Amino acid sequence: MSLNQLKEEVLEANLALVEKKLVISTWGNVSGYDPETGFIVIKASGIPYNSMKIEHMVVVDLDGKVVNTNYRPSSDTKTHILLYREFAKFGIRGIVHTHSKFATSWAQSGLNIPCLGTTHADYFVGDIPNTRLLTASEIADDYEGNTGKVILESMSGKDCLKMSSVLVHSHGPFVWGKTPAFAVLHSEVLEYISEMAFNNFILGRDRLPIIQNELAEKHYSRKFGVDAYYGQ
Amino acid sequence: MSLNQLKEEVLEANLALVEKKLVISTWGNVSGYDPETGFIVIKASGIPYNSMKIEHMVVVDLDGKVVNTNYRPSSDTKTHILLYREFAKFGIRGIVHTHSKFATSWAQSGLNIPCLGTTHADYFVGDIPNTRLLTASEIADDYEGNTGKVILESMSGKDCLKMSSVLVHSHGPFVWGKTPAFAVLHSEVLEYISEMAFNNFILGRDRLPIIQNELAEKHYSRKFGVDAYYGQ
Amino acid sequence: MSLNQLKEEVLEANLALVEKKLVISTWGNVSGYDPETGFIVIKASGIPYNSMKIEHMVVVDLDGKVVNTNYRPSSDTKTHILLYREFAKFGIRGIVHTHSKFATSWAQSGLNIPCLGTTHADYFVGDIPNTRLLTASEIADDYEGNTGKVILESMSGKDCLKMSSVLVHSHGPFVWGKTPAFAVLHSEVLEYISEMAFNNFILGRDRLPIIQNELAEKHYSRKFGVDAYYGQ
Amino acid sequence: MSLNQLKEEVLEANLALVEKKLVISTWGNVSGYDPETGFIVIKASGIPYNSMKIEHMVVVDLDGKVVNTNYRPSSDTKTHILLYREFAKFGIRGIVHTHSKFATSWAQSGLNIPCLGTTHADYFVGDIPNTRLLTASEIADDYEGNTGKVILESMSGKDCLKMSSVLVHSHGPFVWGKTPAFAVLHSEVLEYISEMAFNNFILGRDRLPIIQNELAEKHYSRKFGVDAYYGQ
Repeated sequence: MSLNQLKEEVLEANLALVEKKLVISTWGNVSGYDPETGFIVIKASGIPYNSMKIEHMVVVDLDGKVVNTNYRPSSDTKTHILLYREFAKFGIRGIVHTHSKFATSWAQSGLNIPCLGTTHADYFVGDIPNTRLLTASEIADDYEGNTGKVILESMSGKDCLKMSSVLVHSHGPFVWGKTPAFAVLHSEVLEYISEMAFNNFILGRDRLPIIQNELAEKHYSRKFGVDAYYGQ
Repeated sequence: MSLNQLKEEVLEANLALVEKKLVISTWGNVSGYDPETGFIVIKASGIPYNSMKIEHMVVVDLDGKVVNTNYRPSSDTKTHILLYREFAKFGIRGIVHTHSKFATSWAQSGLNIPCLGTTHADYFVGDIPNTRLLTASEIADDYEGNTGKVILESMSGKDCLKMSSVLVHSHGPFVWGKTPAFAVLHSEVLEYISEMAFNNFILGRDRLPIIQNELAEKHYSRKFGVDAYYGQ
Repeated sequence: MSLNQLKEEVLEANLALVEKKLVISTWGNVSGYDPETGFIVIKASGIPYNSMKIEHMVVVDLDGKVVNTNYRPSSDTKTHILLYREFAKFGIRGIVHTHSKFATSWAQSGLNIPCLGTTHADYFVGDIPNTRLLTASEIADDYEGNTGKVILESMSGKDCLKMSSVLVHSHGPFVWGKTPAFAVLHSEVLEYISEMAFNNFILGRDRLPIIQNELAEKHYSRKFGVDAYYGQ
Repeated sequence: MSLNQLKEEVLEANLALVEKKLVISTWGNVSGYDPETGFIVIKASGIPYNSMKIEHMVVVDLDGKVVNTNYRPSSDTKTHILLYREFAKFGIRGIVHTHSKFATSWAQSGLNIPCLGTTHADYFVGDIPNTRLLTASEIADDYEGNTGKVILESMSGKDCLKMSSVLVHSHGPFVWGKTPAFAVLHSEVLEYISEMAFNNFILGRDRLPIIQNELAEKHYSRKFGVDAYYGQ
């Protein structure tokens, strides 16, 4: 894949966030990773989506060095880099950050989102984790790096292919996938299940009706397991 | 009706799910049944709606044998087949499965949706039933068949023309009608009344304000009874 | 005004219900009244909005006699007639019935919607009333007439120009105005304030934060009072 | 800037309210201020957005004298004037009033909206204040002026560049910014965080999960502080 192809792919994924109503204004960002060159393409900081062009796709390396110097990359670039350093070896090539409403409401609540149904189980294995709070010094010094750090702490012992979302406490979701487009899809699904889990919090009188393990495993495996029979 | 006409009808019904915001991505499915030939037409598995074409309409028979071999049918095909085997004799020719948000939230809650007003009563007689949980072995072995089985258990003693929806516990709704288009309409109405019942759960401080029987019967009968006077 | 002009006006108002997301499918209806001839124009029963044309606008008189015999009028026509018989003398020329979601949720709850803010006070003086339940015999015999009767009971002692909406218990809102277009506007505002009142029911821990009388009166009078200074 | 340019800017900002779903019908208004001439441009009263033109942009001075006499200015003009008198010296050039749903629900509740996450902190420092109730005599006499007065009371001790929104009790939000377009953006963000805070009120069982001070300050300062690194 050429760097230009990756830029196109990342641009398209950024614009898809608007179409799927996951971002407004200049919020959120999508990045893509090229495993051959080790370069990351990420949205420039503070660019409104309605005037976003290929030139606003900024190239950085895994040390955060900006290769394309016309624009400053997203202020969240350091967080993306830390996740690629850990997840790229498993085939992750796209990362999304949004403040989509229901996922962010859960992020703000400090609660995990347990698996309540097959819609969740079709994409995510287990609870969507919420990070711990950052300490005052983690906020003051290398904030975006430490945001990546607490995401990785929350993913400790988890398979990033089976759990592709973390809620950053008091902030919002970071989501990934095998391509930028898959990371956008997972963001859309996360928002969808976040809204339904919110409804179930109410219907359950504050108790969430957790799904049976067997059913959750069945749904994930019929879609992504070794004997998957969903899809073509 | 020719098989091609049925394919067109089922394609159009599948695309209507997107327009009515009842599905995203590749979720959900519509099938149609031809009582003359005994063939079912159903959406191919995992096809995104925005690239869906007539060629993705797969033909299967009531034993699950795929007649059109280009594509694999929806992974939920077995469930559809079981419902047609029982309901076709009453004139049911269309079945829809979605994960529409409010209906699925109710499905996840394990609760039935009682009839709270004339909007519900205009289409459905009585509570929208929620299935029992499947057992671990029912999940492990012939999952989609057993999904059909618990739907039919929930319909035991009920008239499938007067109750065209069942919520599958922890999963989502299955809905039917005399044509694929009617099954889509019933799915849309189910989502609508699910959202209002959710609102009433809150306004009623967790108690649902059940409608008077007489009023529910009046509304259903003025629309579908022997002396119906709704419509042309 | 010619009858054709009234038909155009009523057609446009019916189609506006779809645009404002107050109805789906064939639900709801708008009528218009011509004080010179005493004729009412109302939507034909069960016509989908997406194929509605001027020919589906049915003419009836205040005794319910259908003048235009091509189509059957809305099944709710009798209710409209009873309201015109009482309200026409005050200049009411349009009536709307919908099952819009939040207004209908309140209708189903059996609760009135008290005035909680200036958005409500700008259009409606006092609580939006909910009717009493109909008796079994009122449902069995002349149901639509009795629906009109309980609406008028709820309006007893009220000025229909200052309170243009009633929630019919377990059913949905009936709304009126000086023209069909104003009746649609009032339906849109009713749905809007119904949603906000629902939010305030939650934020108030089930207690609704009623507005000060002075503020409610100020807002209504600056818009519609003798010294109104809102508008041109 | 010419007065015509300001009119164009204010017209565009008014129309943006519709596009962002913050107003319906003739509700709400945007004004713009020209610091060179001391003139304010504001929407004419009661003009529907779908027929709004440059000629409906009315010019008034800081004493409320109408310069452009074709149309009556918004009935809320006096409130805008009082805010410009206080805020113009800090560079505020745009003011917006809406009845957007979630912000207005909070306004009706009488509650402040505390800062629950970085989405809020990215734009607003501290709680969104709710005004005190007006007294009966403040409502009766110079209502719009007194509305401005209680907004300014709520802003006492606050920096209008860091807190650009006030909820007027039982009414709705007034919002400002360095341009009319920024005031619209802040109105959109206010509605967004109001909805999420509503969600968190529910998820927190009526307790709002206030953000850490350090995190709120970090987010505001990385966007607007002396060492800001968000944007280009």
